[in-house]
Amino acid sequence: MLGLMQEWPLLCHKLMDHAARQHGGREIVTRSLEGPVVRTTYAQLRARALKAAQRLERDGFGLGDRIATMAWNTARHLEAWYGIMGVGAIYHTLNPRLFPEQIAWIMNHAGDRLLFVDLSFLPLVEKIAPQVPSLEKVVVLTDAAHLPATALPDVVAYEEWLAEADGDFSWKSFDEGTAAGMCYTSGTTGEPKGVLYSHRSNVLHAMMAAMPDAMGLSSRDTIMPVVPMFHANAWGLGQSVPMIGAKLVMPGARLDGASLYELLDTEKVSFTAAVPTVWLMLLQYLEETGKKLPYLNKVVIGGSACPRAMIRKFRDEYDVEVVHAWGMTEMSPLGTLCTLKPEYAGLEGEERLDVQQTQGFAPFGVEMKVTDDNEVELPWDGRTFGRLKVRGPAVARAYYGGAGAEQFDAEGWFDTGDVAHIDPNGYMRITDRAKDVIKSGGEWISTIELENLAVGHPDVAEAAVIGLPHSKWGERPLLVVVRKPGREPSADEILAFLDGKVAKWWMPDEVAFVPEIPHTATGKIQKTALRAMFRDHSLPTESPGAQ
Amino acid sequence: MLGLMQEWPLLCHKLMDHAARQHGGREIVTRSLEGPVVRTTYAQLRARALKAAQRLERDGFGLGDRIATMAWNTARHLEAWYGIMGVGAIYHTLNPRLFPEQIAWIMNHAGDRLLFVDLSFLPLVEKIAPQVPSLEKVVVLTDAAHLPATALPDVVAYEEWLAEADGDFSWKSFDEGTAAGMCYTSGTTGEPKGVLYSHRSNVLHAMMAAMPDAMGLSSRDTIMPVVPMFHANAWGLGQSVPMIGAKLVMPGARLDGASLYELLDTEKVSFTAAVPTVWLMLLQYLEETGKKLPYLNKVVIGGSACPRAMIRKFRDEYDVEVVHAWGMTEMSPLGTLCTLKPEYAGLEGEERLDVQQTQGFAPFGVEMKVTDDNEVELPWDGRTFGRLKVRGPAVARAYYGGAGAEQFDAEGWFDTGDVAHIDPNGYMRITDRAKDVIKSGGEWISTIELENLAVGHPDVAEAAVIGLPHSKWGERPLLVVVRKPGREPSADEILAFLDGKVAKWWMPDEVAFVPEIPHTATGKIQKTALRAMFRDHSLPTESPGAQ
Repeated sequence: MLGLMQEWPLLCHKLMDHAARQHGGREIVTRSLEGPVVRTTYAQLRARALKAAQRLERDGFGLGDRIATMAWNTARHLEAWYGIMGVGAIYHTLNPRLFPEQIAWIMNHAGDRLLFVDLSFLPLVEKIAPQVPSLEKVVVLTDAAHLPATALPDVVAYEEWLAEADGDFSWKSFDEGTAAGMCYTSGTTGEPKGVLYSHRSNVLHAMMAAMPDAMGLSSRDTIMPVVPMFHANAWGLGQSVPMIGAKLVMPGARLDGASLYELLDTEKVSFTAAVPTVWLMLLQYLEETGKKLPYLNKVVIGGSACPRAMIRKFRDEYDVEVVHAWGMTEMSPLGTLCTLKPEYAGLEGEERLDVQQTQGFAPFGVEMKVTDDNEVELPWDGRTFGRLKVRGPAVARAYYGGAGAEQFDAEGWFDTGDVAHIDPNGYMRITDRAKDVIKSGGEWISTIELENLAVGHPDVAEAAVIGLPHSKWGERPLLVVVRKPGREPSADEILAFLDGKVAKWWMPDEVAFVPEIPHTATGKIQKTALRAMFRDHSLPTESPGAQ
Repeated sequence: MLGLMQEWPLLCHKLMDHAARQHGGREIVTRSLEGPVVRTTYAQLRARALKAAQRLERDGFGLGDRIATMAWNTARHLEAWYGIMGVGAIYHTLNPRLFPEQIAWIMNHAGDRLLFVDLSFLPLVEKIAPQVPSLEKVVVLTDAAHLPATALPDVVAYEEWLAEADGDFSWKSFDEGTAAGMCYTSGTTGEPKGVLYSHRSNVLHAMMAAMPDAMGLSSRDTIMPVVPMFHANAWGLGQSVPMIGAKLVMPGARLDGASLYELLDTEKVSFTAAVPTVWLMLLQYLEETGKKLPYLNKVVIGGSACPRAMIRKFRDEYDVEVVHAWGMTEMSPLGTLCTLKPEYAGLEGEERLDVQQTQGFAPFGVEMKVTDDNEVELPWDGRTFGRLKVRGPAVARAYYGGAGAEQFDAEGWFDTGDVAHIDPNGYMRITDRAKDVIKSGGEWISTIELENLAVGHPDVAEAAVIGLPHSKWGERPLLVVVRKPGREPSADEILAFLDGKVAKWWMPDEVAFVPEIPHTATGKIQKTALRAMFRDHSLPTESPGAQ
């Protein structure tokens, strides 16, 4: 027997309808690409998003069309999202930090028909567009006065394009399973893979994210998403913030310490979110200027592990609570957030930091488990680590076009590719990537933990650990070190520094000094390249005749 | 094109799975019907709910079966709910405060096959059961040692019944639209009507309720639902509290001031919820004893309008925040909650109370509008009142068996039967019931506002306003007053007291004094009976020959 409750599909434009109706006058503040800080409201943004939808429909765009955006966080970018979703088309965020060839590959794979682009990326698009035959038109997110000359055909300024619609339009109706958004993962190996979000998954994710024990978003907050909309949907803030109707501050293209500080201060931002690198720049700016953060309450930090020193500094020097988080593009992206359950809420000092260094626990809507190589589920004891697998209504079940099928199992579990342990209270900590973890004599060694320890040595600028083949143990760790300028630590000094901090059998078999460690376009250590560098290297612990 | 996100139906048992997995050791404290305060955990409760499900399936109960419960808020009642829902059956909460004939009518209409009942209601069930032929068995929520002698056939103690299952069981799988729960409205007119909740509506409602700007529920809270599970699902707390994993305190049968205080104090309750009557008893107890509420932060008050003095007393004398709320059985039940948006967050004193006397605003997932008699939508100006209509995924689209179809329109709007105005910031205030509002010369007069003003007179014990027919104006107000013992206010004195507080044309045409005003079984003023009392009465403003 079915219940007798209303059919009310979870559609993204209902988030914006709610914002406009219940919080219509609340401000959306943008540092525009043209320069000035500009202001609008939810009511105005919704009206313009309706115009965008109307114009899109008139131009023949609708259900299932992929429409790319390459833009910073601005009100125009957000209203383009809602306009696109409102006709049943799919916003496809492009990461401008990728190489042009990668972007072109992704656009061709997605079959993008239209592109909304920020002024600053127009030169990049001039290189890419000729390689993407499906692309029909480019809309530059500016007005006619600011539109530069370009050799590209079919280019129009957004404000002109929008002005041709009168806004007398209603959102289209469709199933809540309809695709709403798209984002490609920029894997360190293999081709990029497309994740296809649905209206339902976006709405449920927004609800999960706003909960008190997750991000805890309220209409009384002023929220600045520094994490870009092209980085896993700005962690869902483009949906969850309208849902709760908070004032929204969009930082545009300028993410340096001084620019972010200016907005944090003048707009009285209470909540913000970004990767650690951004906060390093801000903290450095604050130290140089002696400025403080009197309005900021909370900062969500994810994308890569947040250094302990950063959590400490935000708390001790600026009275700001760090919520350490973990997610993936395939998870919309939220997986876990480190808010404090009652078991941990009373901790202070180093003990509190110990908990905050984990990536936290999963909210309702994210199931997780860790398994060994034989798919056997491992205990939540805070020590035993294994492959992290997840399930939920905002987790991908496949990639666009069918790539990567091996990451999804029959019971719906998605293999994250991460290695983690979970403690008895459900707090998860990433210890490695599955492809990087070192398997020594049947046991696993976390390369990330070794790297974190090694960079604690005062003479070490950067460190990376890779596993090299070993005839007796299968694999053994090699520690690769970039020395700080003018410093000359020896291998023995570094090993002595590690001694006692890790189990004996975790100790690297060798320390290799290099002038530079290879990185990906997005700044991560490129272990594939590092492994290639040491392909013919033999560890000193190897007996000479073993190979 | 559909998105590629996981199929993960919103099923209620997933809430309990999450609680057991992420908050497994958190306590559920119950004042048992047998007497002592007993303790369990989410992990234990889930294990017992699985046993209940297993036993139900073995006994032939499953998809679509209606299974009644007549019980106070206890861990056993909650685990029965999850056991019932876990096999796809429907928990049907019965309100023991109704007359036995009403309960029997409801059980027959629902076709209940099984009944879980508290010890204290067994005598009531002995009267009802013979009138309900569909009822196969009665499970008394106690153990064999406490099971009293009864003339009823097929009675078993819950603990014995449960012990026959070993718990080696998995929840059943089904569509998220499957019916999960049922509750009949006890309308003041007409037959009771059954609302049929779905798994989807229950889960979405739990998410809506927990949001920071709604109830704001966190795992760090200790939550005591005083509002009974048979009163509109304990306002969803039976689902939302497991979802966020807070400690749960179940007050059982004793809702007097001293008993509630004892639990508030010993269990350090931070959040509670109930109707105003309950809090009157608690506040009286606190005044008599001089006790305080050092742990309590927030109390949600709904079911009927919360008096201004109560909001003030909780704040000024006990430092407790009142969240005034409104909902209906047909809405799962939450409609609006009066937390403060930034526009109002800075208010203090009387201005803050002015806002808190409204029932607040609708969270995402509740749409509302007010219309006039011609279905024309009225402005949100804080003055113009009309029929309040709502829409959303946790709002009914029909009643069980098809009654009351006139309350639902083609666009999905449900006519609440309430009359309300909404201010420009979305804050809604109920001004009347639609069937009570007085239509005078085409304009509406709120009987509730007049009543609230009249009881402010120091000599008035209770007041009710009804409309009487009037040849010129259509209807005009009659104010019916019960005088305080030993006081003798005149009609003119009372009218003089109202003068200047309402528009001239709102002034009652007459004041009638009565020894008593009729009430319903649940304590509301019974205006139908009052209108019957004055059926042949003619207002003095009526010209003698008009009729």
